[in-house]
Amino acid sequence: MFKVAILGATGYVGIEIVRLLQNHPEFEIVFIGSHSFVGQKISDVYPNLRGVFDMECCKFDTNNSPDADFYITALSDDVSREIIPVLVQKGKTVLDHSGLFRYKKAAVYEKWYKTTHVMPQLLENAVYGLPEIYRSKIKGAKLVANPGCYPTCSILGLAPLISHKLIDTKNIIIDAISGVSGAGRKTDLPYQFSECTENFKAYGVSTHRHTSEIEQEISFLAKEDVLISFTPHLAPMKRGMLCTIYANLAEHKSTADIIDLYKEYYKNEFFIRIMDEGKLPETKFVAGSNFLDIGIVVDKRLNRVVILSAIDNLGKGASGQAVQDLNILAGLPENTGLTSPGLYI
Amino acid sequence: MFKVAILGATGYVGIEIVRLLQNHPEFEIVFIGSHSFVGQKISDVYPNLRGVFDMECCKFDTNNSPDADFYITALSDDVSREIIPVLVQKGKTVLDHSGLFRYKKAAVYEKWYKTTHVMPQLLENAVYGLPEIYRSKIKGAKLVANPGCYPTCSILGLAPLISHKLIDTKNIIIDAISGVSGAGRKTDLPYQFSECTENFKAYGVSTHRHTSEIEQEISFLAKEDVLISFTPHLAPMKRGMLCTIYANLAEHKSTADIIDLYKEYYKNEFFIRIMDEGKLPETKFVAGSNFLDIGIVVDKRLNRVVILSAIDNLGKGASGQAVQDLNILAGLPENTGLTSPGLYI
Amino acid sequence: MFKVAILGATGYVGIEIVRLLQNHPEFEIVFIGSHSFVGQKISDVYPNLRGVFDMECCKFDTNNSPDADFYITALSDDVSREIIPVLVQKGKTVLDHSGLFRYKKAAVYEKWYKTTHVMPQLLENAVYGLPEIYRSKIKGAKLVANPGCYPTCSILGLAPLISHKLIDTKNIIIDAISGVSGAGRKTDLPYQFSECTENFKAYGVSTHRHTSEIEQEISFLAKEDVLISFTPHLAPMKRGMLCTIYANLAEHKSTADIIDLYKEYYKNEFFIRIMDEGKLPETKFVAGSNFLDIGIVVDKRLNRVVILSAIDNLGKGASGQAVQDLNILAGLPENTGLTSPGLYI
Amino acid sequence: MFKVAILGATGYVGIEIVRLLQNHPEFEIVFIGSHSFVGQKISDVYPNLRGVFDMECCKFDTNNSPDADFYITALSDDVSREIIPVLVQKGKTVLDHSGLFRYKKAAVYEKWYKTTHVMPQLLENAVYGLPEIYRSKIKGAKLVANPGCYPTCSILGLAPLISHKLIDTKNIIIDAISGVSGAGRKTDLPYQFSECTENFKAYGVSTHRHTSEIEQEISFLAKEDVLISFTPHLAPMKRGMLCTIYANLAEHKSTADIIDLYKEYYKNEFFIRIMDEGKLPETKFVAGSNFLDIGIVVDKRLNRVVILSAIDNLGKGASGQAVQDLNILAGLPENTGLTSPGLYI
Repeated sequence: MFKVAILGATGYVGIEIVRLLQNHPEFEIVFIGSHSFVGQKISDVYPNLRGVFDMECCKFDTNNSPDADFYITALSDDVSREIIPVLVQKGKTVLDHSGLFRYKKAAVYEKWYKTTHVMPQLLENAVYGLPEIYRSKIKGAKLVANPGCYPTCSILGLAPLISHKLIDTKNIIIDAISGVSGAGRKTDLPYQFSECTENFKAYGVSTHRHTSEIEQEISFLAKEDVLISFTPHLAPMKRGMLCTIYANLAEHKSTADIIDLYKEYYKNEFFIRIMDEGKLPETKFVAGSNFLDIGIVVDKRLNRVVILSAIDNLGKGASGQAVQDLNILAGLPENTGLTSPGLYI
Repeated sequence: MFKVAILGATGYVGIEIVRLLQNHPEFEIVFIGSHSFVGQKISDVYPNLRGVFDMECCKFDTNNSPDADFYITALSDDVSREIIPVLVQKGKTVLDHSGLFRYKKAAVYEKWYKTTHVMPQLLENAVYGLPEIYRSKIKGAKLVANPGCYPTCSILGLAPLISHKLIDTKNIIIDAISGVSGAGRKTDLPYQFSECTENFKAYGVSTHRHTSEIEQEISFLAKEDVLISFTPHLAPMKRGMLCTIYANLAEHKSTADIIDLYKEYYKNEFFIRIMDEGKLPETKFVAGSNFLDIGIVVDKRLNRVVILSAIDNLGKGASGQAVQDLNILAGLPENTGLTSPGLYI
Repeated sequence: MFKVAILGATGYVGIEIVRLLQNHPEFEIVFIGSHSFVGQKISDVYPNLRGVFDMECCKFDTNNSPDADFYITALSDDVSREIIPVLVQKGKTVLDHSGLFRYKKAAVYEKWYKTTHVMPQLLENAVYGLPEIYRSKIKGAKLVANPGCYPTCSILGLAPLISHKLIDTKNIIIDAISGVSGAGRKTDLPYQFSECTENFKAYGVSTHRHTSEIEQEISFLAKEDVLISFTPHLAPMKRGMLCTIYANLAEHKSTADIIDLYKEYYKNEFFIRIMDEGKLPETKFVAGSNFLDIGIVVDKRLNRVVILSAIDNLGKGASGQAVQDLNILAGLPENTGLTSPGLYI
Repeated sequence: MFKVAILGATGYVGIEIVRLLQNHPEFEIVFIGSHSFVGQKISDVYPNLRGVFDMECCKFDTNNSPDADFYITALSDDVSREIIPVLVQKGKTVLDHSGLFRYKKAAVYEKWYKTTHVMPQLLENAVYGLPEIYRSKIKGAKLVANPGCYPTCSILGLAPLISHKLIDTKNIIIDAISGVSGAGRKTDLPYQFSECTENFKAYGVSTHRHTSEIEQEISFLAKEDVLISFTPHLAPMKRGMLCTIYANLAEHKSTADIIDLYKEYYKNEFFIRIMDEGKLPETKFVAGSNFLDIGIVVDKRLNRVVILSAIDNLGKGASGQAVQDLNILAGLPENTGLTSPGLYI
């Protein structure tokens, strides 16, 4: 059994990692770090876990870090900034969920996060934790930056088209929605039940940080600088993410052509399911799982392709992908402990 | 008091018109037509109306139509097809909610609705009931076709940009979401609570009928043939519609420039509210009302404008607009009986 | 036009009173008091009001109180405690929403609210603002205490049975649910969307403050001291309240008997609607309105009656009832400005 | 591996059993019976299963029944009535979900289900599949009747009190709520999203069939005939059930006393979790799992106990319990494949 320490275990991303790892056949949670619930059982904070996993929450001390093979950090950028350099210096293997280590250029982080990046030297060896693209690099990494939810859904939705240079890179538009859990366990007014339910809205239009993360990775795949329009929306549901991606085709292709291309591109990917022609993904198909479902429609009138990619923002968009990365880091089959299909109802 | 007959009063569009008219100061409902609930009180079908409006539902008989100044039809296309020619022939003034009379060319209807248009001769004099654009034509019309919900939200969202030729008409993308009431009072499985809640999906991608309605009107405004991408989505809420519209600017404009333009364009429109810079519409701002809220963001990096327009699909998207049209037909101030702000909570 | 000042206008109860009064034919809002939003337009806080009611929020100053015929206070008990004695001393007419003035005995308040009642002398002349029971006293009152939402729904549900001594007063059980807006515009974690949605729970079992309010009024009606079981629950919806009330019949009565009794008892009450046998209330029948719907079932096997009473917790349970009280205070027909039926969808 | 055939696999109870068994370590699904989807993959009907479990749905033929160790039937009473006698006659072991075999007296079934019981002779050997009470009888049974969801939640909530004769059996009141999935995969109007959401209502007051099932089992435990009040409600959520149970204590007991009693009574039960004093169950603590959580409050003023018991109506209330029963039938540890804690968010 590999030993795992989870720092920031009582946020929504952290607790979903706890849920996935507590009955994973090859990992053992040895440490549950929490800022707000020190001394309480994790099952008092999340009573669904009672009788199943009752470990006590502890304060993390960089001078006396728990003995673990892997450290998962699901913390604010501010806290990550302090803890991670220490862990890295000690030679620990870290899987981080902040925005800090997702960029190749500190300047991009600094521009979009409007702050200084204090550890640009760590960026060189940090690996972007998107297994379908960086699997081989993740394998030996000491610092893996788990991608954002929107970037995971967008990049994997676009990768085959971009890699095959099938689309005009000047008019890519990503219109995305997320369930409310994507905001984390926050208590701000806009996430209050009576404010959220029966409501739908866009936010961060043209300024959302994930834009830069998507652009970095799409540009790598395109081997040219690509800018995109990205508009996130908040939908009145807990979990689920759908990206509706528009791009102008560079040549004439049918829906069937593009579907074939995607099936070929992802033929070895357990977690990516390409829908047959005429079928479209729904967030409930993937909620509670690590799957990413992709539906494709070519609008012949406009020679434009519409890609619909769906994930669970807490699954493939965060915690599920974290476990997928851990499996790779540990040399396990990538879907170990991740084959649960989600509830549907 | 003007007399109004409502045919198809027990569907969601019909009953919302009933709700709005039952305490309208200038209209009196004289007939409630229903296919399924003949002989029952409307307040037995919708018990929120008990003690407020208890009229009995009746079968409509074309040979013996009730005496009314205005006939509102909120019926399936199949039933509209039979009833409306009779009403028109009798010289009645009709406000219809089917797709039949929204088009200037029968061929467009036939292509998108995959059926034959049996009364193309009625199209010439039918008026598209979008007051902000066709106010003067509605005034004297005998047959008004109330626009679809998505077209209302999309066309009014785009009109100022199109009219001022500020955007490239080749890359207009409309990504839209609707609450479930937009599907009407249907009992199909996909609209079942356990299937809809905690779910989000696209549907009718590139094939939705409203695409053609939007294209017709945008083309009239642009004075050229314009094709658009239109993708509707279903959000897990009862009411509310948001269109996120993307277009490439033909010249450099700031967010403030476009906001000024919209405020000027709609300066006399009571129901259209342009948000100030930095603010975005939410469906709860308009739910339960006849307002349409528009937010605007220019992405300078891409010289692309993002328009966010929000309505209540049953308000400005259907029944509220019907009453607005009725007010025009009757020569009343357009917002008579329509100034309620919606519930917010 | 009577002038009304609303203190605490930006909470959920306050803003619903604003919504109801802004187009009331006989009241004019002259002052909008807010603690958190001084200097902002109320329509910036609740954008559904834009273009309809845009008054600026002001700080209330007891030394310089606005000139108004009626003062509505929708404040925390702590703030009410300071402001109301001043208003009363100045001879103002006050309609309050705190728990402070709902009791005839300060000791009961002090026991259930676990605090000292600093103005017991005001209790004597304060009137419990439940129009269906205290209509004549409200008419000339200077201080009206608007009842809690659960008490309104419970007391009116039980009044006919209690008044006619038809039930055993030892085994009255009130099992109640409320929508989340009942908690007010709070940002505590339990009211967060992801925590509330798809969740149902009881709270305050046997200790909820409203228990004492219900017991006081039921005891007055029974002319004996009555204790009850009261269990509130939180349901995943914005608005709506349902009380399911159980009582053992003192003599054999049929469902029809009890329904007749209720219809007779409430025959002059516009806002109370008794359902016919076989029909049961649903919260959506009353949401957005000031109605209270009552359904009745006698379980002959047990000689037990089950009363189901439904209101909108923000309507008849708070803000609607406030306007009903205001109408009485002003000598207007009681349903002036309150005949809207609610949305249903 | 034991072989299992599931008849009625595409309803909500059936598909949840499929979900639980598809990765159960000791059971293998060998047959998926469906009436409506013959020839389709189960993963086309429920696309969450794609790539995980893609078995084809087949028509069940009593003359050519699949070879299986266990037959699970999740069918309507009408279909169960035809199929089950045949299976029983062939010596198959059957786990049924209809109401047919839950009663010891056919007359009770006939009274509450208003139909004739065609196989009263089967009742003698049928075992009521509530493991915490009938574990030893289930072990060797050939026909197990899985209890209804409300009965499971109610009986287990009351069992310790009843068994210890601590309550007056004349005034037991069970006020219960269920999520909408409890109605099954129906398309009736009342279960439509726009009708259910933001709505709460009681149904079947004093007439719900489950009343009789609860009374039968409570009477067995009490060793006397007990009648109860049972009121089910529909809450706007997919999954989850809460019973709020009221009973008058026969002697003075504190909350702590009763909690101790429950902890002792259920000390060997993995799936029953008794909450500590001051804590109450929420449906989200158990949703997606086979747990039943119980909270207890004694109201000293009234010497009345309030029991709050929560389950997932599709978990311990149906499909989870079915797997628990299967484990017993197969001689496996009872919680095999059932230790998943549910999602919480």
